[in-house]
Amino acid sequence: MPGCIFCKIVAGGIPAFMVGENDLATAFLDIRPANPGHTLVIPKRHAENIFETTPEEWHAMSDLVRTLSIAIEKATDAHGLNIKMNNREHGGQDVMHAHVHIVPRYKGDGVVKPLVQQSAYKTGEAEELVKKIRSATR
Amino acid sequence: MPGCIFCKIVAGGIPAFMVGENDLATAFLDIRPANPGHTLVIPKRHAENIFETTPEEWHAMSDLVRTLSIAIEKATDAHGLNIKMNNREHGGQDVMHAHVHIVPRYKGDGVVKPLVQQSAYKTGEAEELVKKIRSATR
Repeated sequence: MPGCIFCKIVAGGIPAFMVGENDLATAFLDIRPANPGHTLVIPKRHAENIFETTPEEWHAMSDLVRTLSIAIEKATDAHGLNIKMNNREHGGQDVMHAHVHIVPRYKGDGVVKPLVQQSAYKTGEAEELVKKIRSATR
Repeated sequence: MPGCIFCKIVAGGIPAFMVGENDLATAFLDIRPANPGHTLVIPKRHAENIFETTPEEWHAMSDLVRTLSIAIEKATDAHGLNIKMNNREHGGQDVMHAHVHIVPRYKGDGVVKPLVQQSAYKTGEAEELVKKIRSATR
């Protein structure tokens, strides 16, 4: 898509530190890493978020996420690792080409914050949600 | 694995609000949701983290993550959605059975914090890292 920085990286128009690829997905170092080795996995085709990926693209991205997570942990001697994907503006997404972050972690580094979790569901609320989610599942 | 709460959920020994499953993975509502509909996707077999999943288990988990992300966004009228996986203690993992969080988001809810990103790489540092990651990739 014209104007998309990640599409330009895929096309080779903007240089990036490429760490791996397969048929439908590719991966490169984030230039503002949370820790060294912080990698982004993206579909080669422009898909804005997970909702716009095809099952095949998501498979390819997921394959790369797993393979690279193993490699990145080894290569960086990390103590742990996070995988994170932000979808849509209100999900914290900045670049509007789908991307999965792989972030190597070290004891006490604080670069990935825990989720802010709430209290439990009210009576009947969870049952109602399960019904809605199941009926929305294709 | 004895003592693992998620293995007990898989075995039916502890009740949970199940939202979907396939051959190798299953999914249920987090009982302390960041937002209503917050779901955990896990492998049915005990694998401690992404590093211990087989490619087939990770595929099955990823399939469920994509299908349920689409369904959860619809069912909850969310404005965005995060996918997050913590691996190992220093990656913020609490329950030591691999799990991927799906978190529906709303404008300004602040339940998923942005990554703390650093300054750029020093000259030569990124090239060195790419070399290490590539040679660690199986």
